[in-house]
Amino acid sequence: MSIISAPTRFGHMNADHAPGQQQDALPPGLRHVDFSHGDVDAFPPPPSVLEAVAGALNDGGRYAYSPYRGHSFIRELLAPRLSEFTNTSVDPTTEMIITPGTQGGLFLALSSLVDTGDKVAIVAPDYFANRKIVEYLQAEPVPVSLGYLTSESGRACLDLDRLEEVFSQGVRLLVFSNPNNPTGVIYSADDIEAIARLAEKYNAFVIVDELYSRQIFDGIGFTHLRAYTAQRCLTLLGPSKTESVSGCRVGVAIGPAPVIQRMEQLQGIVSLRAPGYMQAALEPWFVEPDGWLDQRIEDHARIRDDMHAVFMDSGYVRTRRTEGGSYLFLHVPAADGKIDEFVERLRSEAAVTVTRGQEFGNFQDAVRLNFSQDHGAAVDAARRITDMAAKF
Amino acid sequence: MSIISAPTRFGHMNADHAPGQQQDALPPGLRHVDFSHGDVDAFPPPPSVLEAVAGALNDGGRYAYSPYRGHSFIRELLAPRLSEFTNTSVDPTTEMIITPGTQGGLFLALSSLVDTGDKVAIVAPDYFANRKIVEYLQAEPVPVSLGYLTSESGRACLDLDRLEEVFSQGVRLLVFSNPNNPTGVIYSADDIEAIARLAEKYNAFVIVDELYSRQIFDGIGFTHLRAYTAQRCLTLLGPSKTESVSGCRVGVAIGPAPVIQRMEQLQGIVSLRAPGYMQAALEPWFVEPDGWLDQRIEDHARIRDDMHAVFMDSGYVRTRRTEGGSYLFLHVPAADGKIDEFVERLRSEAAVTVTRGQEFGNFQDAVRLNFSQDHGAAVDAARRITDMAAKF
Repeated sequence: MSIISAPTRFGHMNADHAPGQQQDALPPGLRHVDFSHGDVDAFPPPPSVLEAVAGALNDGGRYAYSPYRGHSFIRELLAPRLSEFTNTSVDPTTEMIITPGTQGGLFLALSSLVDTGDKVAIVAPDYFANRKIVEYLQAEPVPVSLGYLTSESGRACLDLDRLEEVFSQGVRLLVFSNPNNPTGVIYSADDIEAIARLAEKYNAFVIVDELYSRQIFDGIGFTHLRAYTAQRCLTLLGPSKTESVSGCRVGVAIGPAPVIQRMEQLQGIVSLRAPGYMQAALEPWFVEPDGWLDQRIEDHARIRDDMHAVFMDSGYVRTRRTEGGSYLFLHVPAADGKIDEFVERLRSEAAVTVTRGQEFGNFQDAVRLNFSQDHGAAVDAARRITDMAAKF
Repeated sequence: MSIISAPTRFGHMNADHAPGQQQDALPPGLRHVDFSHGDVDAFPPPPSVLEAVAGALNDGGRYAYSPYRGHSFIRELLAPRLSEFTNTSVDPTTEMIITPGTQGGLFLALSSLVDTGDKVAIVAPDYFANRKIVEYLQAEPVPVSLGYLTSESGRACLDLDRLEEVFSQGVRLLVFSNPNNPTGVIYSADDIEAIARLAEKYNAFVIVDELYSRQIFDGIGFTHLRAYTAQRCLTLLGPSKTESVSGCRVGVAIGPAPVIQRMEQLQGIVSLRAPGYMQAALEPWFVEPDGWLDQRIEDHARIRDDMHAVFMDSGYVRTRRTEGGSYLFLHVPAADGKIDEFVERLRSEAAVTVTRGQEFGNFQDAVRLNFSQDHGAAVDAARRITDMAAKF
């Protein structure tokens, strides 16, 4: 063998199925709908974002290089907005870092908190990178279930008894997303308060990914964990989803100063900094034009409702109505154990790209859809999905 | 303690002195010269780069999301240019990845090749992140000396006997920069050929950081390791330095397909991808307007010569004439053991920011300067450095 062998950390990552990486051919004659991520042509960034970045490109002396934790003038701009949003105080100098996307923040956070051999509580289902990063760090993911299908109308519930059990057995870190990726569940205030209480009781720490927390439907309340336990939690935020700024790769993490400091030390070796020019994309964040966010939420709620109606009518699939964010998690009971074939045929026969349920835990009959798409195209594609489910 | 303790990987990183991170006050009345990185106002990116990125920002459907290894249409554009530059064939599909800066490529490459407990040969002096990343991975750096001060006029020499010794003792990876950061040394063809031969003989792999390989002075030849041993080497390139595109955070790594594949798997959890819009900054790379690169090299050679003259005249410092890139490594014998004080006073009294020699290995009397600066300001600052050396 001419190449030195792969390090141990590759042994458990199961990184072969990288969502959104398919390069194979699509069928002719159908409009391709790629539900693996949002469509930025259907929902473009606020114009002020593009103006801010274009301006930064012409002011290299100010923007090109920043401290590893990001431009201080941008952190100072954001701190009061994030304080108001999360209902907590945020120090721009010590409690905030700008990261290369929220993904970059997640990697830095876990790398700053997880040691080799540690056990880390991970919600099932939840964002696939949580597990992969824990495995990269040669630590062990310990699943804690989120009951999201228990009732169609009621609130989802985290298995708090299980969380207490794993904390009592030595787990010192929980990582989860709220709104939940892939189900669109929003955690109740009671669940968030209970998580904070258990973290205090067992001297544990929590990473909460609130990437989609500005896009909340139907007036459901959103509770920031940080408001209950700011010193035991790191909150990941960013404009990649609702604001369609993913192409800029900027995110923000807020948390206790010692954790932010470790994250900055790692950022110095992982990628130096979030792109200097692109950090300008954060300047108009939270100060979009009046009505911009409401319109975006309303547009997404309508796509959700129309797709949900297609799925409910079909009888071949089941899903939960998304409470926040743009994801829905679709169960296709007839594809149980054959989900790879279902996903492959959806793409090759119906020009629909989805993400396999197994990425989010042990879900053998499910797929995830990001419905931040052209409205008509998304509803058409939902029908093609139910047609395919019928074939199974 | 309210926060869970720092993981073991922080134990040896010595990340406290992050170059270019100083935030303390500067003296009034003097023009600050920050030699810790280049000045993009003095040497801006080619206008075509800014145009390409501005265009991409308005074409989100094409640019915002890419495969983790980068847009295929950009890899296809670059492959023939990199083939010609390195005098090797480069497959755009399997042998290339676009990374968040060359730093991002270095992190992914080492993470893809180094296991816990491995020994990794690192040149001394060399770029500080090499050592820090190896220590982050809980592996052990093994120094191999570069003789760069042996003669003022002759070629520098890597200690090849030492390299063979550490390879024979089980080291399976060498990482080095060419041109060398911080000394500006270019490796001779003989040294490069010998490195390739030893890698073959001992079944080892080599990461070579050629970030500054387009900025070569005085017609000195540059030899790409890849041309001797393409299957045992990964080459890091990017437009961050000579082309002043650091603010975009894009780089390129070329190497054997299995290593590129591992790097892509890791990129999927570390940061997903280099910023989609910023990947457009690579489109004009290697096809700058006629004469643009020659002019940039000539301008830098003149700054180098004028600073070198100041240093040689002073008698208080010594350095080697830079052969490639924009770094010079300055020894201040009178500051031996007091280099932190020297660096601190340079900043607080002379408004000059430099990088400590200890970042690059066991160099207690040296500092690194990036002379990609306004010409007059750089030469003035060189005089303030020799004045400070005189005070010591």
